[in-house]
Amino acid sequence: MKIQPVKGTRDFYPPQMRLHNWIVGGWKEASLRNGFEEYDGPIFEHLKMYEQKSGEEIAEQLFSFEDRGGRGLAIRPEITPTLARMVNQRINSLPKPIKWFSVPRVCRAERPQKGRLREFYQWNIDIIGVEEIVADAEVILCAVDYLRQTGLTEKDIAVKISSRKMLSRLLEACEIEQELHTGIYAALDKKAKIPEEAFEKLLEEKLPDQEKRQKLLEIFATKQLSELQENLQYSSEAAEAIDELVELFSLLESMGISEYCEFDIGIVRGLAYYTGMVFEIHDREGSLRAICGGGRFDSLLKDFGGPSIPATGMGMGDCVLEILLREKGLISEEMPKPAADYFIAVMDDELVEVAAGLAAKLRLAGFSAEFSYKKAKMKKLMKQASEMKAEKCIILGGEYIENKQIVLKNMETSEQRTADYKQFCDELKFSEPNQENGEE
Amino acid sequence: MKIQPVKGTRDFYPPQMRLHNWIVGGWKEASLRNGFEEYDGPIFEHLKMYEQKSGEEIAEQLFSFEDRGGRGLAIRPEITPTLARMVNQRINSLPKPIKWFSVPRVCRAERPQKGRLREFYQWNIDIIGVEEIVADAEVILCAVDYLRQTGLTEKDIAVKISSRKMLSRLLEACEIEQELHTGIYAALDKKAKIPEEAFEKLLEEKLPDQEKRQKLLEIFATKQLSELQENLQYSSEAAEAIDELVELFSLLESMGISEYCEFDIGIVRGLAYYTGMVFEIHDREGSLRAICGGGRFDSLLKDFGGPSIPATGMGMGDCVLEILLREKGLISEEMPKPAADYFIAVMDDELVEVAAGLAAKLRLAGFSAEFSYKKAKMKKLMKQASEMKAEKCIILGGEYIENKQIVLKNMETSEQRTADYKQFCDELKFSEPNQENGEE
Repeated sequence: MKIQPVKGTRDFYPPQMRLHNWIVGGWKEASLRNGFEEYDGPIFEHLKMYEQKSGEEIAEQLFSFEDRGGRGLAIRPEITPTLARMVNQRINSLPKPIKWFSVPRVCRAERPQKGRLREFYQWNIDIIGVEEIVADAEVILCAVDYLRQTGLTEKDIAVKISSRKMLSRLLEACEIEQELHTGIYAALDKKAKIPEEAFEKLLEEKLPDQEKRQKLLEIFATKQLSELQENLQYSSEAAEAIDELVELFSLLESMGISEYCEFDIGIVRGLAYYTGMVFEIHDREGSLRAICGGGRFDSLLKDFGGPSIPATGMGMGDCVLEILLREKGLISEEMPKPAADYFIAVMDDELVEVAAGLAAKLRLAGFSAEFSYKKAKMKKLMKQASEMKAEKCIILGGEYIENKQIVLKNMETSEQRTADYKQFCDELKFSEPNQENGEE
Repeated sequence: MKIQPVKGTRDFYPPQMRLHNWIVGGWKEASLRNGFEEYDGPIFEHLKMYEQKSGEEIAEQLFSFEDRGGRGLAIRPEITPTLARMVNQRINSLPKPIKWFSVPRVCRAERPQKGRLREFYQWNIDIIGVEEIVADAEVILCAVDYLRQTGLTEKDIAVKISSRKMLSRLLEACEIEQELHTGIYAALDKKAKIPEEAFEKLLEEKLPDQEKRQKLLEIFATKQLSELQENLQYSSEAAEAIDELVELFSLLESMGISEYCEFDIGIVRGLAYYTGMVFEIHDREGSLRAICGGGRFDSLLKDFGGPSIPATGMGMGDCVLEILLREKGLISEEMPKPAADYFIAVMDDELVEVAAGLAAKLRLAGFSAEFSYKKAKMKKLMKQASEMKAEKCIILGGEYIENKQIVLKNMETSEQRTADYKQFCDELKFSEPNQENGEE
């Protein structure tokens, strides 16, 4: 029986696993540095939670199933609904503001394609309980802090920022009926990905009124936030939302990351639950999907049966990120193995048990140690030791059989010395139990 | 809409997440120290893989579903089938021996009860390509190395060891037909959990022949491996398997962990694929399920369509382990938060933007930093700083408004000094991009 993996899933062999750990490790470090605490939820939840509350695109892509009691369940396609559920459950006892992050594995029943798999990891950070714009700036900062740490610069990536609140007010200023807004957002979301004529045609479908459409196209052509501010026709209606964006850009300037950030009226984000600032991070060449997206969603907790509490956050998947880092030469094709402290070279099959015992004593004392399961020629053993980047090599051979002595070799300097086996072992102490729990 | 979590799943709020990270971090460190490399597979695989190859108990507990193409899939109930698939796919290019570990999230449609949930984490370590008993000893060593590191001692836990090969030969020596073996293993697996009479009744069902049953009960009463060796009636048939166990115990002695280890003829393990040594780690009080179980399964790769290559390994779940660590007082109820480098106390609402900018510069320079979103009284702010165990506090208040100065307070010594804001910021450098990928 030959079995294939499921299409759109990944096998993490040790080199890929090291790369994955490097990405996730970077996400976690950036989160902690920026004051976020880690949480996680179950890999599956009640189906109805996603059907009712995820964006339409996500709800269509659920892997759903039933448990033995016939209850409808689904593998999580995102963690935001779980976050809302968890926060609502303890809303009174959790200290505010809530600054949480997570790196959930999520699954979506999509057609696999470049940068999009049926299973991936998504870094999520969220700030709940802060209505001030400074929280929106912090979310963007945290994403940029991570990306900068990988080696990406403002020449490689751009944070494109707009506001759903502002867009909504501008549509109202054009006297466009509320029920048409969602369709127009969907069209605008495609603007950057399709030719200009195709976009105009799409917009015509969503907004048949020629005059209103003309006004809207004018607004969508805006390049600078200041143009909107100066255009008195719209600015009064959208003033509050525009002011919030101005404040956001001022904060990003104070934070020293304004070179990464720009206004882009074309950013809307697909998900229905955004209510304020929205942003996406793109590669400057524009050849890939968004690396990251987020925004303010002040009605999230309320939608899930909780109180009305402001929230802002973002998500970053690992697939597009990995493609970009590779394109920019920021990850090597073969991730190196971590170095070992000791390699024990066995020169005689009789000594395998001694080697295993010695390796055990080293490991129990807290050192990483490996040994050869069978005797081999010195040259082969030294090659093995170099491959695992062992700092020290212990040679078990004739010296042990004759005098119970071992040869210690420093692999960097090639210096060798002999030592008494028993004395060497006696000096190895059991390491102290690690009771410092809580630290990663 | 109030939504509940699914029964048998866990929410990891930040304190539980810190505990979870401490457990998983310990597993990973022990694995690396013992020379294992990390891998992982998809969270779901083709359903038929588990239906055909997992043990019967596991195959009954699958969460299965269909993708849009109507293919049968299942959330992984264990990672061993994935391991076999991945190794078989690259059997010729992977260097041997293969020493891999993983910490998969796995799901089983069981009735939730103490120490058993419908979703848990299971540490797996496996050695593939070594037929020598030393590999079996290494698997046990790695498990004991981890458990010792948590603070558990030989007074708390016991590694109970037997051999499926030996059991099978002993059954043959009693002239028990091959087709009855599985039923007898299942009965023996229950022996320790039920009263003696109930066991004898169960065995009678599985083996109606009174004479053979009497012989078997005599064998099952064996306490010491030496009794089996000395009982010539059986030892010739089972000699090879008994010798292997003797060698294993000698290796465990050399490794310095024999006080943890004991022979127990009652250990069989439920899963069908074991072919040699089998073991379980139990709490000495015997009040909990097994903490860990494993053994040799030399036909695993072949069962999955690959070549015949020896393998040995083990799995340890997080649920029973956590209960035991709590019972022994080895984890504190509330896991402490990691300490922050800086807390910025804002004494005036006008200064929030300055604080956000300063926090950003600290974070981008690699320090963890937090700030208050709103001004507050000094006492409250200092309490906040202590709660996050900040090493240093930066006070932004009158000194900044008057002279652009900040107050730096060492939270340990309570020493304070003023510094020029601009100069302080200029001395903060962007941290170097972390290109040392591959290291965790």
